[in-house]
Amino acid sequence: LATKLPKVGTTIFTVMSQLALEHQAVNLGQGFPDFDVPQRLVDALARAMAEGKNQYAPMTGVPALRQAIADKTEACYGYRPDADAEITVVSGASEAIFDAVQAVVRPGEEVVVLDPCYDSYEPAIDLAGGRAVHVPLDPATFAVDWDRVCAAIGPNTRLLMVNSPHNPSGAMFDADDIARLSEIVESTGVWLLSDEVYEHIVFDGRRHESVLRYPQLRERAFVVSSFGKTYHCTGWKIGYCIAPPALSAELRKVHQYNSFCSFAPAQWAFAEMIRDEPEHYRQLGAFYQDKRDGFREQLSTTRLKPLPVPGGYFQLVDYSAVSDLDDAAFCRWLTIEKGVAAIPLSPFYESPPAGQRLARLCFAKNQATLDAAIKRLVSL
Amino acid sequence: LATKLPKVGTTIFTVMSQLALEHQAVNLGQGFPDFDVPQRLVDALARAMAEGKNQYAPMTGVPALRQAIADKTEACYGYRPDADAEITVVSGASEAIFDAVQAVVRPGEEVVVLDPCYDSYEPAIDLAGGRAVHVPLDPATFAVDWDRVCAAIGPNTRLLMVNSPHNPSGAMFDADDIARLSEIVESTGVWLLSDEVYEHIVFDGRRHESVLRYPQLRERAFVVSSFGKTYHCTGWKIGYCIAPPALSAELRKVHQYNSFCSFAPAQWAFAEMIRDEPEHYRQLGAFYQDKRDGFREQLSTTRLKPLPVPGGYFQLVDYSAVSDLDDAAFCRWLTIEKGVAAIPLSPFYESPPAGQRLARLCFAKNQATLDAAIKRLVSL
Ligand SMILES: CSCCC(=O)C(=O)O
Ligand SMILES: CSCCC(=O)C(=O)O
Repeated sequence: LATKLPKVGTTIFTVMSQLALEHQAVNLGQGFPDFDVPQRLVDALARAMAEGKNQYAPMTGVPALRQAIADKTEACYGYRPDADAEITVVSGASEAIFDAVQAVVRPGEEVVVLDPCYDSYEPAIDLAGGRAVHVPLDPATFAVDWDRVCAAIGPNTRLLMVNSPHNPSGAMFDADDIARLSEIVESTGVWLLSDEVYEHIVFDGRRHESVLRYPQLRERAFVVSSFGKTYHCTGWKIGYCIAPPALSAELRKVHQYNSFCSFAPAQWAFAEMIRDEPEHYRQLGAFYQDKRDGFREQLSTTRLKPLPVPGGYFQLVDYSAVSDLDDAAFCRWLTIEKGVAAIPLSPFYESPPAGQRLARLCFAKNQATLDAAIKRLVSL
Repeated sequence: LATKLPKVGTTIFTVMSQLALEHQAVNLGQGFPDFDVPQRLVDALARAMAEGKNQYAPMTGVPALRQAIADKTEACYGYRPDADAEITVVSGASEAIFDAVQAVVRPGEEVVVLDPCYDSYEPAIDLAGGRAVHVPLDPATFAVDWDRVCAAIGPNTRLLMVNSPHNPSGAMFDADDIARLSEIVESTGVWLLSDEVYEHIVFDGRRHESVLRYPQLRERAFVVSSFGKTYHCTGWKIGYCIAPPALSAELRKVHQYNSFCSFAPAQWAFAEMIRDEPEHYRQLGAFYQDKRDGFREQLSTTRLKPLPVPGGYFQLVDYSAVSDLDDAAFCRWLTIEKGVAAIPLSPFYESPPAGQRLARLCFAKNQATLDAAIKRLVSL
């Protein structure tokens, strides 16, 4: 059996979580919180089950949830997507990305991705028979070099994939990025996929430049988000895609025959939570900013040098004062020998920058977890 | 935006459920129970949430669930799959089918399907760039003509997809079918996908001829099942695939970058339910046999002629004594004018048999629902 995906191995997130488990390391690798889902959401889910909402949800998502997403989108970004034609609930942002790519990319077509990028983008493109064209971000600031993006787009380019706040770096688009991106989308006619799963985790008064704010962008874009990051439930796997009717129709053709619909009781629970407790997502930035600030202060007692974190729940650290190992070797060593699991950046790249000495630490953790990690990191 | 899936519209199940809602029809169309999930499963899920099992499950599924599936498979079919290398938990049987097809079918390759077949098979094949080759079942008995299957398999055939108990007909494989299928698989070297979601809904003492019973078949097969049909929770979307390590590895490459993992608390709940209450799936055949028998008796008071139902929860009826409309028109008329929603068979075919006058009724319903439907059907 010859494989269709020769480049695919086990994701680095699974690899490092397993290694963490084997070596009883504090797991700051794979991105998930170790504190719990809001009780209200758990209660609402239990109520939905008790009310018998246990059969197939509509393929596009429970109407009350699509309505709540439309309301919330309008409140956040001043744009109200059509709940029927433009919002599709799917089984996590991963499925949304996968479906969108399968829906529009054909064999031989190209998709521009910005490195480092999330590790599901390229396999999704490969499976569609497309080819990922990698444009590196600035290795120090993770800013986009829009001239390079523009140069990478040719007649065969179908899709451009962007991500802000950015995983793994936390970098965020500003108004200038949006201006350049708009020029490029308008002049090339490329479709856009904007991965915005960290939309509510932004710091220091910054504004999340959602593609949904901009008519010239959203009319050509799949905008993907998820409840996993916003509601501390990465294992619930409910996400959604907002896209104009024609793009949504194509995405739904794939979704309909892929997972068809998502865990129904959770959809009702999210509808209620979004509607009745908007403070949750409004205060999420402040909640994580406290964690970020505390963690950075703790890191200052170690020899790891933290990079700026504009958004998201990951802290990149430069470990060059500690070790000359490459990042994959360093993260293994850190996990096995020092008992703290981290994620290397190289798996997010086609060609990692030579000599880059960065590791990613997730700070979506209880203070006790962060304390335990720091206790081990000070000895580096 | 030119579509990649020109043949795909909204599935017949969604179309008929919407029509049922609009016209307040009794919905015997889309296949889902209108009675509820076992309380134990609901309680176990709530407990899993309370215990904080709300973050990413392992990509292949929660170990306790894979273990429970291995135990149950051994108890039912005398074969114990390896929980680590051969069992993958995914977001419903639909995702399993979709992933398996994407994993092994390449552009230009052929997949043999037996008509009538479930409406997700062909779009999954089309999306992979493959071509579905349709072999009709016997229009009266829904038996497989294995000579025609054999003739349809050529050098370019990658996969053969089978389904027993069969949706929509309820037909089941017997030992002769397995013998012929084995010959074909061995002589052609084709891969097999066996959709067995109705495995526990079998009647009159029949034995479900799972492909897992037969080494010569299971070593070349993706065997797909789901908890939706077995535990009355079609909206929970947890299914699984059992396949030899090499096939599982390919399926996982797709699943890993598609939905990645499935709703975690339900996985724990199913692990507990399967382990602690095997009577549930053991008694499911008897539970549905009562419904089938009662419903058939009620149907004898109408002018609809019920076909035999060896397994599954669908009753095919011949409506030729009532109407000369084609099946799509008849099912619309029945829904709108008579207030009972049914599913036509033509959408399950590439070329429906001329003059076939059959509709599918789902009897996975409370007695009150069946009574209400019959009250309307007697007036036909
Ligand atoms: C699906 S596991 C990956 C989780 C995640 O988003 C990350 O760690 O970057
Ligand atoms: C995904 S909706 C279809 C449900 C079903 O299996 C059927 O009605 O045949």
